Amino acid sequence: MSERLRIAQVAPLAGPVAPETGSSIEQIVWLLTEELVRRGHEVTLFATGDSQTSARLHADYPHSYKKDWRMWDTWQYHELVHLGAAFERAGEFDVIHSHVYHFAPPFARLVETPAVHTDHVPTGGDVRECYARYPGTRFVALSRYHRSKFEGLKNIPVIYNGVDVESFPFNPEAGDYLVFLGHMIERKGPVEAIRAARKVGMPLVLAGPRPDEAYFEAEVAPFVDGRIVEYIGPVSAAERNELLSGAGALLFTSLFSEPFGLVMVEAMACGTPVAALERCAVPEIVDRDATGFYARDADALAAIIPRTVALDRHRVRRQAARRFDYRRMAAEYEALYRRMAGRSAGGEALWVS
Amino acid sequence: MSERLRIAQVAPLAGPVAPETGSSIEQIVWLLTEELVRRGHEVTLFATGDSQTSARLHADYPHSYKKDWRMWDTWQYHELVHLGAAFERAGEFDVIHSHVYHFAPPFARLVETPAVHTDHVPTGGDVRECYARYPGTRFVALSRYHRSKFEGLKNIPVIYNGVDVESFPFNPEAGDYLVFLGHMIERKGPVEAIRAARKVGMPLVLAGPRPDEAYFEAEVAPFVDGRIVEYIGPVSAAERNELLSGAGALLFTSLFSEPFGLVMVEAMACGTPVAALERCAVPEIVDRDATGFYARDADALAAIIPRTVALDRHRVRRQAARRFDYRRMAAEYEALYRRMAGRSAGGEALWVS
Repeated sequence: MSERLRIAQVAPLAGPVAPETGSSIEQIVWLLTEELVRRGHEVTLFATGDSQTSARLHADYPHSYKKDWRMWDTWQYHELVHLGAAFERAGEFDVIHSHVYHFAPPFARLVETPAVHTDHVPTGGDVRECYARYPGTRFVALSRYHRSKFEGLKNIPVIYNGVDVESFPFNPEAGDYLVFLGHMIERKGPVEAIRAARKVGMPLVLAGPRPDEAYFEAEVAPFVDGRIVEYIGPVSAAERNELLSGAGALLFTSLFSEPFGLVMVEAMACGTPVAALERCAVPEIVDRDATGFYARDADALAAIIPRTVALDRHRVRRQAARRFDYRRMAAEYEALYRRMAGRSAGGEALWVS
Repeated sequence: MSERLRIAQVAPLAGPVAPETGSSIEQIVWLLTEELVRRGHEVTLFATGDSQTSARLHADYPHSYKKDWRMWDTWQYHELVHLGAAFERAGEFDVIHSHVYHFAPPFARLVETPAVHTDHVPTGGDVRECYARYPGTRFVALSRYHRSKFEGLKNIPVIYNGVDVESFPFNPEAGDYLVFLGHMIERKGPVEAIRAARKVGMPLVLAGPRPDEAYFEAEVAPFVDGRIVEYIGPVSAAERNELLSGAGALLFTSLFSEPFGLVMVEAMACGTPVAALERCAVPEIVDRDATGFYARDADALAAIIPRTVALDRHRVRRQAARRFDYRRMAAEYEALYRRMAGRSAGGEALWVS
């Protein structure tokens, strides 16, 4: 079981792979790659040139297409070039792990090396149809909810995302405010968070960028009174951690078809429990009565907030460490890679099946 | 030289491959494929299911993504799936010819079968940089102008596009109006055509869709007086041919970096000469004093219109047949395929080198 694997990790070109990148995909790839190297594997990371890694870096692009306006229009093409470079070197690897959306399956058929695909973004209907074209392909789902999107495809393991729990500031005391973290757009649900906070009469801090100014002005700004509702704009990773750590609870009100929901785990790592709308992967991530509660709508959400804030924060943190530490995630991917490379020692899989 | 080749033609998924499709790429792929089949080759056409062809059709998609709103957002991914299917079958072909923009080079490296790429759309700066990543790749340029965009890449043959000259209605008499055919958008130059027509005092018929209503209302509509300038909206292929055939000259005033300019050849096939702005591939397509004239700006364009209209229309048609018939195009691609497949009988290439 301790045999060294030659692993290619392929990150998207949307941002550098680095700690505290602010982008959850690149953050997860960073943690996974670091842990695989620590476990003694020979890892090659395909990512932008400004990435940080203990693995060997293969960078055909110096930085994200977001830093080059000429690349934006054709960013999908650049992802394709980037993936092509990894599959061109297929013979050098025991396994290729693509985190580049749903883009790699057409390449995977052209090489002998087994490949696995983790698509970190919400799964649209047409993408589902395309997955169905690749019945022999090894997809990983980020939750049972996410797996339900791969209609008709069998044998898709669920591997939950992980964070470096120890790196988050633990706060044993429940703060006197609620926090909402995310883009100020309708599908992230800031309005639902505001409704619940106002109903329960507890201050709410909203943090995150406002890409749609018209939406923000019409739907969010009228409630920002500096008393119950405060808006502080985008935050750095350090500011985010402080904000989460100091809160009585995180309100997770996304209306989006999120395959996971990393911010819930980040809150838990600080000891901060989660009050969420019962959607998508929420019931899998939040352990009711231990790390939070969930409810069907904003009114019901208001009703569960006091109970959520009262939860034992030591227990919240312990549960985060037990279920969502990145080392657990890396161990599960490692077991999957071994099985794919025909190097499994047998026995049951570690991941949720 | 008469050996049968197994050829894969890969069209984009933007529309069906068919005669009179209204889209120049699919039209060219249709003509090329039909002629290759007629020449005895075993051709497999990768295209939408509603395509028409004498070749074997491989269709993973029933129709264009333009007919399925769920596919629009991720159309580049669908082109990737479509290309992947062709390269997956690489072992069945002697050569693969991709017309799918600049998308296939990353796939071409993963198979043994030689591939050639014809990118039919204007070449942006970032696409040029990407081409430079594939120095060993066989690109074809549609004109010497187009080839100049492949900076630093050697050995790119120029193969001009072709039309079925005989299918166009020849008119030996010069009509009493000018025609402009194209989208009513700034970079297609309808304003320059209007300026030239007004200056020379000859009626101009503008035909084509108006995707940008604001531009049309501000820049084009004020000149539409039904006397000098008439706008008739989009036209069918049959209407287009009638319009071109009946005109004294085509005004080609594109300000866009077009690699070719098929409408010029379509006009010539009707016997209608071309008065053009001297840009991009225009000096290669228009034979001065034989099939048309070109000038530096709209004012100079006005000055050459009378000379253009007076050209011998029999000669215009003959020249179109000699230089831009689709059988010449197919013969040049066939010679290229043979050379790529190692089946050339030697001797000089047919194409512009």
